[in-house]
Amino acid sequence: MIKVGIVGATGYTGAELMRLLAEHPEAQLVAVTSRSDQGNAVADMYPHLRGVVNLHFVAPEVDNLVDCNVVFFATPHGVAQKLVPDVLRAGIKVIDLSADFRIRDVALWESWYGQTHGAKELIKEAIYGLPEFNRQKLISANLVACAGCYPTSVQIGLLPLLSEGCIDVSDIIANAASGVSGAGRQAKLANLHTEVSENFRAYSASGHRHLPEIEQGLTDIAGNPVTLTFVPHLLPINRGIHTTLYTDLTDLTINVQALFEEFFATEPFVDVLPAGSHPQTRSVRGSNYCQVSVHRPGNGSKVVVLVVEDNLVKGASGQAIQCMNIMFGYDETMGLSAAGLIP
Amino acid sequence: MIKVGIVGATGYTGAELMRLLAEHPEAQLVAVTSRSDQGNAVADMYPHLRGVVNLHFVAPEVDNLVDCNVVFFATPHGVAQKLVPDVLRAGIKVIDLSADFRIRDVALWESWYGQTHGAKELIKEAIYGLPEFNRQKLISANLVACAGCYPTSVQIGLLPLLSEGCIDVSDIIANAASGVSGAGRQAKLANLHTEVSENFRAYSASGHRHLPEIEQGLTDIAGNPVTLTFVPHLLPINRGIHTTLYTDLTDLTINVQALFEEFFATEPFVDVLPAGSHPQTRSVRGSNYCQVSVHRPGNGSKVVVLVVEDNLVKGASGQAIQCMNIMFGYDETMGLSAAGLIP
Amino acid sequence: MIKVGIVGATGYTGAELMRLLAEHPEAQLVAVTSRSDQGNAVADMYPHLRGVVNLHFVAPEVDNLVDCNVVFFATPHGVAQKLVPDVLRAGIKVIDLSADFRIRDVALWESWYGQTHGAKELIKEAIYGLPEFNRQKLISANLVACAGCYPTSVQIGLLPLLSEGCIDVSDIIANAASGVSGAGRQAKLANLHTEVSENFRAYSASGHRHLPEIEQGLTDIAGNPVTLTFVPHLLPINRGIHTTLYTDLTDLTINVQALFEEFFATEPFVDVLPAGSHPQTRSVRGSNYCQVSVHRPGNGSKVVVLVVEDNLVKGASGQAIQCMNIMFGYDETMGLSAAGLIP
Amino acid sequence: MIKVGIVGATGYTGAELMRLLAEHPEAQLVAVTSRSDQGNAVADMYPHLRGVVNLHFVAPEVDNLVDCNVVFFATPHGVAQKLVPDVLRAGIKVIDLSADFRIRDVALWESWYGQTHGAKELIKEAIYGLPEFNRQKLISANLVACAGCYPTSVQIGLLPLLSEGCIDVSDIIANAASGVSGAGRQAKLANLHTEVSENFRAYSASGHRHLPEIEQGLTDIAGNPVTLTFVPHLLPINRGIHTTLYTDLTDLTINVQALFEEFFATEPFVDVLPAGSHPQTRSVRGSNYCQVSVHRPGNGSKVVVLVVEDNLVKGASGQAIQCMNIMFGYDETMGLSAAGLIP
Repeated sequence: MIKVGIVGATGYTGAELMRLLAEHPEAQLVAVTSRSDQGNAVADMYPHLRGVVNLHFVAPEVDNLVDCNVVFFATPHGVAQKLVPDVLRAGIKVIDLSADFRIRDVALWESWYGQTHGAKELIKEAIYGLPEFNRQKLISANLVACAGCYPTSVQIGLLPLLSEGCIDVSDIIANAASGVSGAGRQAKLANLHTEVSENFRAYSASGHRHLPEIEQGLTDIAGNPVTLTFVPHLLPINRGIHTTLYTDLTDLTINVQALFEEFFATEPFVDVLPAGSHPQTRSVRGSNYCQVSVHRPGNGSKVVVLVVEDNLVKGASGQAIQCMNIMFGYDETMGLSAAGLIP
Repeated sequence: MIKVGIVGATGYTGAELMRLLAEHPEAQLVAVTSRSDQGNAVADMYPHLRGVVNLHFVAPEVDNLVDCNVVFFATPHGVAQKLVPDVLRAGIKVIDLSADFRIRDVALWESWYGQTHGAKELIKEAIYGLPEFNRQKLISANLVACAGCYPTSVQIGLLPLLSEGCIDVSDIIANAASGVSGAGRQAKLANLHTEVSENFRAYSASGHRHLPEIEQGLTDIAGNPVTLTFVPHLLPINRGIHTTLYTDLTDLTINVQALFEEFFATEPFVDVLPAGSHPQTRSVRGSNYCQVSVHRPGNGSKVVVLVVEDNLVKGASGQAIQCMNIMFGYDETMGLSAAGLIP
Repeated sequence: MIKVGIVGATGYTGAELMRLLAEHPEAQLVAVTSRSDQGNAVADMYPHLRGVVNLHFVAPEVDNLVDCNVVFFATPHGVAQKLVPDVLRAGIKVIDLSADFRIRDVALWESWYGQTHGAKELIKEAIYGLPEFNRQKLISANLVACAGCYPTSVQIGLLPLLSEGCIDVSDIIANAASGVSGAGRQAKLANLHTEVSENFRAYSASGHRHLPEIEQGLTDIAGNPVTLTFVPHLLPINRGIHTTLYTDLTDLTINVQALFEEFFATEPFVDVLPAGSHPQTRSVRGSNYCQVSVHRPGNGSKVVVLVVEDNLVKGASGQAIQCMNIMFGYDETMGLSAAGLIP
Repeated sequence: MIKVGIVGATGYTGAELMRLLAEHPEAQLVAVTSRSDQGNAVADMYPHLRGVVNLHFVAPEVDNLVDCNVVFFATPHGVAQKLVPDVLRAGIKVIDLSADFRIRDVALWESWYGQTHGAKELIKEAIYGLPEFNRQKLISANLVACAGCYPTSVQIGLLPLLSEGCIDVSDIIANAASGVSGAGRQAKLANLHTEVSENFRAYSASGHRHLPEIEQGLTDIAGNPVTLTFVPHLLPINRGIHTTLYTDLTDLTINVQALFEEFFATEPFVDVLPAGSHPQTRSVRGSNYCQVSVHRPGNGSKVVVLVVEDNLVKGASGQAIQCMNIMFGYDETMGLSAAGLIP
């Protein structure tokens, strides 16, 4: 049994960590922090956790986390970098769900996030939290920078093709769409029900913060620079990311269906659907699975890969717990086996 | 470990039984039937169950159920009454989620459902599956007629007041609203996304099939005839029932908040919210909890009780498993402790 | 052709006034105000009005409204009372969509709205803007206090019964549900898509600000004090109010269907559906109609009235324009004849 | 004033024609047909048209259409080709909203639609109903084959680039997403609210029936063969198509924003948004406008064009009326000027 803390537990990824950890047989949640809500009961903010989480929020200070074996940071970017050094120094492992330690090129990070990085020295120690690519390194990690929601879906969808080296890496397109929870729990006009429901739109078509993370990840996988066009869209649903990838085969003899099935045969959370299928975001709602299908329209050189995940689970809190399981030697699927919730 | 079968497993309550049973540590699903889909894999119809349920649908015949200790009927009304006698004769316990065995007055059942009942002799043996009222009788039951979705919410909301005998039972109003999954998985125009979403309407305002079941249940609880006006409405959501009850106190000295808290203090799945609260359907989405609050506008004689449940869980499949736990001597909450899924 | 101004044009009722007035053949929109967005183009905030409204927001000052024949106030409560006196003094008619001038009992208003009223002397001059009850008085009105969204639906649903004097006015129940646009365009956590969609809940069950307005209106109609229990609910839709009214006949010989059909026979915007019908909020989406049906379950004394309206049109901006048409001698339906938008 | 008939008026495009024509000052709807619902009142099926359309459905026979100047076919594919020859022979103009006369290559049509074409000889007489490309030919057309919903959005988005000849036509990607009304008003499991809402998925990723129509249209525009990868997706909204186009500039000196603004400067229903904008489907909900924006991520060779339309209006019934206006010499915008309905 390990003791777990969550810094920034009032957002949706924090709430999702609490929901998932409550079902984890080897994790005990001992501290949840919130600067603005300290002293309040978790269940008052999140009635769905009544009877499930009986903690009160405490201040985000190391003193409140000293009993923990691991601390999750479910904070907006820019926050973890201030507190993580102290937490690590206290001998506590850290799993950061934010963007703070994902990008190795500090200048690149600073240009996209518009601020000076507060813990540059730790970036190179951080292990990128995408088990399907980085499982071995995660075993001994002390600081994990969990892969972002969009980046997870894009990288998983391209892993077999890039590993096989059978596509043109100079021009890949990722057309992605996310549910609104991806925007977090913030009182913004743009995220009102009246603004989002019965609506669909692209955003950041000229450049999104996840682009450098994705290109870094794809380049790591390919071993060569990969160029991506990435256009995210906002779906009028709460949970779910659907990514449609377009790439060109350089080797037309490849059986892409067989390639995907073999590549992911032993992955516990990547499910390749039968040929001709189209994954649905709802099939993985609330679950840590992602489902993938691959098409080759007209049997030409164009390959279309479809990937779905729950942005709050495999795209955030579930993946973080998957990383925790690896770091602490548990079965990787522990506490994460629940099926999706439909309808 | 008990062996479980599901008759009529292709509908939403069937799918929900499969999802929930997969997490139950003492239940092993061994047979799922479907007349129309026999031979097909469950996971082909329900991709969210890929890797979770590895069965194929078989024909709904006793021969296919003989290994079971208990069989759930997740069929439309009129179906269970044909097969249940044979299943019981084979020594298998039955938990019927349909309306077939809920109403003791056969003529009343036949008038509302427009058909002759095919197993009249079993009706009196059936135990009404509402643990909060009938727990003792369920322990030794062989045939359980699970309470309906609306009836569960209305009865739970009125249990404390009727048991206390402090309200006027001649004129109670239940204004209820259900998500669309309550209509089942049938290809009907009225249930299309284009007809349901961004819409709200009442239905059956002049009389709904659940009325006789609810009035029978309330009368059992009160020990006196109870008269109810029941108007259901269709919500543009997938899951959830919200019931708003209006009744008049005959004893104005009652502290209704205290009454509710005390009455449900030991109920594992009924959660009385703090005074002034308003329960939300989403708080219990996917979970077996119901949440209740009670108001007394202007401190007058009118009491307003608000009840939420997930119609597919506490209103159907979860409640059925709760009954199973009681019938087989397991902890009543086994396999049913997961929190609701928000957002 | 009359010249029209809108004070507080950035909210949803303001935007709806702009949309509707653009189709009005005798109205010319000349000024729209916004304190926070002055100088900005309307079309930049509301892209659906590109090419339809070519104005920029100006400051909410009388000097910017002097060309108007009529000014609509689409402001939160407490704002109109500051500016209306000056606008009226400038000889401009005022149609206030807010709650500022609806309640004749100043102390009652001040207790529900928690502030001192800034223009008490005008309250008695204000004509309550519910054409179906007050048409004659509106003809010569200079200041109209438009009926609120919930109050409109409740009053229309009870008008025939109260006018006929055939119901028990001591105990009427209004169970109402509104789409989220009723909460306005404000960046509040509670109105996020993630908080509202796939959810349903009551609010203000112990007392809502619209209660005194409704009781005043019903009492005016009945000629006797009317007591109401009013419980509003939040629907996960953008537009629409559905009100379910429960009342008891004191005269069981009344044919309620005939009563409703006759009472509203000449009303242009109240449509009584055939017996047995259930109105749908979507049928009046975007339109000024309300649809009503009346039920008598089991032919008993209980009458159930169902009313739907679009809260932004008949519940706000459409009704305001209907009042304008009456005040300026136009056909009451001018600019308001468009059908609802389904699906 | 022209007299108008609609064949197949019970579907959503038929209902939308009725809604729009009711506001058209020069069109009088005189006949609406339905094989299955003949004799029934339109308003009984579509309560939103109560008081707006007072017709009853009649049988789909030429005898019932002889008073018409123009007949719209809002039928599934395969139906119009049976009746259109007789209607044309009766001297009545035809505007077909189905796919029957859109594709000039009969064999190609027959292979995609799996049936023998019943009126091959008329295909070459049919004018493709996309006013932005074909306005001149529409003036004298007797038979118009309206552009499909997806094809309209793709062609409008590429018109400026293809006309300018500045992109690589060998590899264009159209990632499109449509609201559910695009699937029509049919009782299919896949279109249930419970299956569509809170969900997103691609479909027909290996090939969709609209592909040959789009490629034919793009090739006509370009004057050279155009190759497209087209992947449609299903949005959990009622109305709206959003298309994201990816193409490569062959001339990097082009100012794409200026190109688009100039190209569409005089188009009444194509609105190019300011640089950096992202169109929203809701901005054109219920309206005949489409809104377009164009991006060039990182100022590279990749151009991303974003197009939104209402699939039932500009993608079907509104475009059909626009064609009618052109054919009968009315102002092209007559009856089509209403703004979108938000929220």
